[in-house]
Amino acid sequence: MLIASIAADVRFGRVLLALVVIVAVARIAGAVARRLRQPAVIGEVVAGIALGPSLLGRLAPGLTGQLFPTDVRPHLQVVASIGLVLFMFVVGLELDARAVRASGRRAATIALASIALPFALGAGVLAPVLFRGHRVVAGRAVEYRAFALFVGVALCGTAFAVLARVLADHGLLHTRLGSLLLSCAAIDDVITFALLGVVTAMATARSPLGVLVTVGALVLFVGVLIAVKPLVGRLLQRTGPATAPLQREHVGILIAATFAAALVTSRIGLHPMMGAFLFGAAIPAGHRHRVARDVRAAVETVSVQVLMPVFFVVTGLAVDASRLGRNELGPTVLVLVLACAGKLIGSASAARATGMSTRDALVVGTMMNTRGLTELVVLEAGRAAGIIDPTVFTMLVVMAVVTTVMAGPFLTVLLPARRRAVSTHQARDERRTAGVPASSHSA
Amino acid sequence: MLIASIAADVRFGRVLLALVVIVAVARIAGAVARRLRQPAVIGEVVAGIALGPSLLGRLAPGLTGQLFPTDVRPHLQVVASIGLVLFMFVVGLELDARAVRASGRRAATIALASIALPFALGAGVLAPVLFRGHRVVAGRAVEYRAFALFVGVALCGTAFAVLARVLADHGLLHTRLGSLLLSCAAIDDVITFALLGVVTAMATARSPLGVLVTVGALVLFVGVLIAVKPLVGRLLQRTGPATAPLQREHVGILIAATFAAALVTSRIGLHPMMGAFLFGAAIPAGHRHRVARDVRAAVETVSVQVLMPVFFVVTGLAVDASRLGRNELGPTVLVLVLACAGKLIGSASAARATGMSTRDALVVGTMMNTRGLTELVVLEAGRAAGIIDPTVFTMLVVMAVVTTVMAGPFLTVLLPARRRAVSTHQARDERRTAGVPASSHSA
Repeated sequence: MLIASIAADVRFGRVLLALVVIVAVARIAGAVARRLRQPAVIGEVVAGIALGPSLLGRLAPGLTGQLFPTDVRPHLQVVASIGLVLFMFVVGLELDARAVRASGRRAATIALASIALPFALGAGVLAPVLFRGHRVVAGRAVEYRAFALFVGVALCGTAFAVLARVLADHGLLHTRLGSLLLSCAAIDDVITFALLGVVTAMATARSPLGVLVTVGALVLFVGVLIAVKPLVGRLLQRTGPATAPLQREHVGILIAATFAAALVTSRIGLHPMMGAFLFGAAIPAGHRHRVARDVRAAVETVSVQVLMPVFFVVTGLAVDASRLGRNELGPTVLVLVLACAGKLIGSASAARATGMSTRDALVVGTMMNTRGLTELVVLEAGRAAGIIDPTVFTMLVVMAVVTTVMAGPFLTVLLPARRRAVSTHQARDERRTAGVPASSHSA
Repeated sequence: MLIASIAADVRFGRVLLALVVIVAVARIAGAVARRLRQPAVIGEVVAGIALGPSLLGRLAPGLTGQLFPTDVRPHLQVVASIGLVLFMFVVGLELDARAVRASGRRAATIALASIALPFALGAGVLAPVLFRGHRVVAGRAVEYRAFALFVGVALCGTAFAVLARVLADHGLLHTRLGSLLLSCAAIDDVITFALLGVVTAMATARSPLGVLVTVGALVLFVGVLIAVKPLVGRLLQRTGPATAPLQREHVGILIAATFAAALVTSRIGLHPMMGAFLFGAAIPAGHRHRVARDVRAAVETVSVQVLMPVFFVVTGLAVDASRLGRNELGPTVLVLVLACAGKLIGSASAARATGMSTRDALVVGTMMNTRGLTELVVLEAGRAAGIIDPTVFTMLVVMAVVTTVMAGPFLTVLLPARRRAVSTHQARDERRTAGVPASSHSA
């Protein structure tokens, strides 16, 4: 017991070292990204990749081993997973308000088109090409159907919060175009995560009956969440009126309930973050704003400043750019081209068809093409479920980073100088009043 | 890599299960404790002990193993340690303001007496008795000097926040007696942690030269903290005036710096929480209030609702009441009697000597006798440093719980009905305005 205790102390020292390095590097990388007029999250993801085998691992293999030794990585994974669960709960919470805003038929049309085309290109064109060299993951054969559907889903993601941040930076957040884009991204989120649930069920169950059981369990869980919604509403009612702040005890109970929901989907065989997302979406509308506000206040700083950077580094440690040799150059470019073509053409043509100007339609296409954190969450789920190998994972992460980086510069080109000439202050104010996370890590 | 990923997912599911159980049990136990007019922290500590080998482990050994399997415990330890580090940073931050309030000579006299007598009884009377059966810890011989000094320190702790909470419950927080007690407890905290640093240095260094090196490194670290204080002040100045809220990025940097300070003391061979405490105490006075407010807002809910309950359970898993057989009954009672006698007689006689009434002096004695969380932190440090074995650890935890439970009822007896008859509402208001944590986990 005491020996274990001393060993725990030494291990905790190493975890501390990793945490200090991660938070420090994330802050610096985030600041550099902002200087380059990119969202901070891009800097942090790139920093995470740089700390992994892709860069630091090659320049100084010993240093990566010292900073993130093998006995520390499981701890970082748990910390990152806790961050992801809390983050997805907030994403779920904020979904309803957006879905309401998204009532317009135009938003629904654009969102569906912006999912349908990339999904079709991913599952129909990209998957057959990629599957050839990557049909075995960690010694287990991957079922083609699951692989194809996952690659389809992997091209669908749109980064809600990164999008919100870029819109704010360009002074577009409170325009009609901005609201439309946020609505589309919200609808995209729901559909993407729903598809992801079905696909990972197919991959982990590995038999038609197993898929039925997993999907059945998921449907049952959603049913239970809907059934207990009035009860949750009554319990929340007892904590005070819809405007009163929640007590800390109640925030604690909500966090525990979020963990419990994550535990359920984890036991079903799906990613834990799925349960957190569903529980967030199941909070009754009357208390949603209040719960979102107080839970965010309680967890967002630690989540955004510490836990999510750990998630990026854990993701980055799994990305190995050295796997992208000459043979992978072609497929990587194909991934990128199909991802961009699907989102851009799908959403821009739908926008044009609903009567928008060509320029506005192109803005819609460019913005819906940002993948950001949503995509990394999807990829992590696919990796955890054993659907994609490290090489495909790396290709898709590269695609997620590149499509997100593209958005800012493209918008600058597309928008006329008059509209761009929004003072930095106004953009900053917009960001603040809109409640967009100041550092836009969220999605 | 992928196999590792899938294993990580399964492990995370188990960590989630443990977290859900811990938070749920902590909330229930806290509520029960409050019903019994005890601070919530007592309920949580007792719940932590009940979930360990003392109760659940004996009633349903399989269940303890399923809830807290051996591969999950290290993760709980890391989570608990992160909580402890954040908690001790806040304790350090809040120290200065209290020390200022504590300027009175009476507070200093009482505090010193309330440390000197228990320390002397612990090191001089208790240690020789206990050392006989507990001189070997995890196969290594313990040095008598380190053991004796540690047992001395172990009788010294006073729980600042539990004390604040009990005072608030009795409507005494804003009385002259209340301020005096808080000042005494603050001085106690500093001296206890300073002594603990020296003692753990002696135990882990294991040679006179090693002790010198460890203490020297600690002194150097404190020197560096004092030297960079103006720089820290200037950096904080750049983030805005002393009243403006800190940005999230800056809270993130402060958290990283806290981890870095914890890392330093961990590398020196002391408990990580020591560095966090020192860094908190080294924040320049002008920005202390602001930093305390914003860091607390960012970390306190998660810390109090999730991380500290995990700490209590991790502590409880190490407590094994079955070790207290017939042979240990005598020593346990001796621990309890000497702990109470030292604190009660020491502080009450000093209070009487400075001219207080007998009743007020007894109130002072009773209140200084609460050990609470401060004591658990001290005991955890001693256990981690290999100074005390699980049996002595268990005896001292029992003492910490009993002395803290005693305070409320004793106060009810000592105080005249007129003073007790403070309406619950007034007490609750006092608690709120005084910024005393509503659930008083802190200390």
